[in-house]
Amino acid sequence: MSLWFDETFQGRVRLGFHVTKTLFHGQSEYQSVDVVETEAWGTTLLLDGVYMTSVGDEYHYHEMLVHPALTSAPSIKRVLVIGGGDGGTVREVLRYREVEQVILCEIDRLVVETSQQYLTEFNVPWNDPRLKVLCQDGVAYLRDYVGEPFDVILVDGADPVGPAAGLFESPFYSACRARLQPEGVLASQTEAPTLMRDDFVRIVKTLRSVFPNAHPYFGPVPIYVCGTWSWTLASNASAALTPREDRLTQIEAGCRYYNRDIHRAAFALPNDLRKLL
Amino acid sequence: MSLWFDETFQGRVRLGFHVTKTLFHGQSEYQSVDVVETEAWGTTLLLDGVYMTSVGDEYHYHEMLVHPALTSAPSIKRVLVIGGGDGGTVREVLRYREVEQVILCEIDRLVVETSQQYLTEFNVPWNDPRLKVLCQDGVAYLRDYVGEPFDVILVDGADPVGPAAGLFESPFYSACRARLQPEGVLASQTEAPTLMRDDFVRIVKTLRSVFPNAHPYFGPVPIYVCGTWSWTLASNASAALTPREDRLTQIEAGCRYYNRDIHRAAFALPNDLRKLL
Repeated sequence: MSLWFDETFQGRVRLGFHVTKTLFHGQSEYQSVDVVETEAWGTTLLLDGVYMTSVGDEYHYHEMLVHPALTSAPSIKRVLVIGGGDGGTVREVLRYREVEQVILCEIDRLVVETSQQYLTEFNVPWNDPRLKVLCQDGVAYLRDYVGEPFDVILVDGADPVGPAAGLFESPFYSACRARLQPEGVLASQTEAPTLMRDDFVRIVKTLRSVFPNAHPYFGPVPIYVCGTWSWTLASNASAALTPREDRLTQIEAGCRYYNRDIHRAAFALPNDLRKLL
Repeated sequence: MSLWFDETFQGRVRLGFHVTKTLFHGQSEYQSVDVVETEAWGTTLLLDGVYMTSVGDEYHYHEMLVHPALTSAPSIKRVLVIGGGDGGTVREVLRYREVEQVILCEIDRLVVETSQQYLTEFNVPWNDPRLKVLCQDGVAYLRDYVGEPFDVILVDGADPVGPAAGLFESPFYSACRARLQPEGVLASQTEAPTLMRDDFVRIVKTLRSVFPNAHPYFGPVPIYVCGTWSWTLASNASAALTPREDRLTQIEAGCRYYNRDIHRAAFALPNDLRKLL
């Protein structure tokens, strides 16, 4: 018996992995949560039947969400992660010595608990004293937030349907900007620039309507349909951000995908996307 | 009735597209040849049940195989294309005014004829007087070749199984080098660096054992399993090749993916691949 699970995108494209074992199935008030073993990528998390992350490929996504922002933000003492319940993003953030506090605000407690139990190979330092995990809605959290502004906000949500939809809209981005230090930086995943081109363009334009500066960048995420993903770095800065040498030195050797060449290269815009943005 | 065709890679991963119409099925002495309409990418060519190219996504692959070599080779008067029976590669080559002769050496006549009939949206200038199409084995052609050396050889073969297997081996690359001008340049597709990592590493190392200089580069090809593809630029030059301004000016505006920023960016090596090469 050969077991496959295919993720289908808009009835047009599907990506399937050979599943050797099912490890967990649960249903929260927000979504279904599954963990399976795939032959290609090892332990793999799905939300609402969509491949989210896996032990074998996760470094591509998490390093590219975190390091362009964390190497280039003027200050990185206080970092907020919205979504990101699997922990891969906070793991990368906590590698920087300058980071003093990380708040992980994931709407779905089941995602956090399932990841802590099954994605142990992610090696997330869940007990790091700098990390505080909140299981609540990121949109409401930011709207109601009254504490010290953040230096960096990382938006690590699923696709703009279901529980993460609000994380791609102008009111949310405006709330992010309002809760950032004046020189603060936001990075968000912004969908697949090839197959989900309309979503990608809309989200980047929304970010540009809120922040003076928003630059999309690109990299491979093999577990996602179409394989090429985008993230966008947004700030109040007047020019594109550049990585700081001391931070690069600190984290570069421990990265599996990211390095200073990749940082620069990732921001190159192909002609087709240039025309649309 | 919803019709899907899934391409399966090593029993581990499969990529499927929703097929709205089947246009052609044939069998040559080398392989099966199919043309279908997919909802995602329009008219699409498959060889031996593997997605090869489509009207909607082909520019990514063809521009990235051709332009890094053609913008940076010292001379581009005489160009040989091995494989590439769909014509997308020669279309991009023929955009350069300096190109005087292009030989397309495709082993399978059925691929050329099928492409000419069904992939009309590729807009290949099949009647350009500079183009000569040969339907014969590229390995034998190069081995027996006695004419004027080529300025550029582009290797546009399928995966290293089946009829294209010989196009990824040391004897073939040595024959290429022997038939190139001393300052000539070779570019080849070199498989998916994520999912087909072993193949990718082996092929690049083979190229490096034959050419003093061989640099892999990367880009998205949405129709291929895993979505990120690699090509490698090889030459006798002592340093990495850089694109020439006059050639960039000539072709950049007409490209849908490639431009000078993409050229530079595509050669950035991620940490995981750096360690393996």
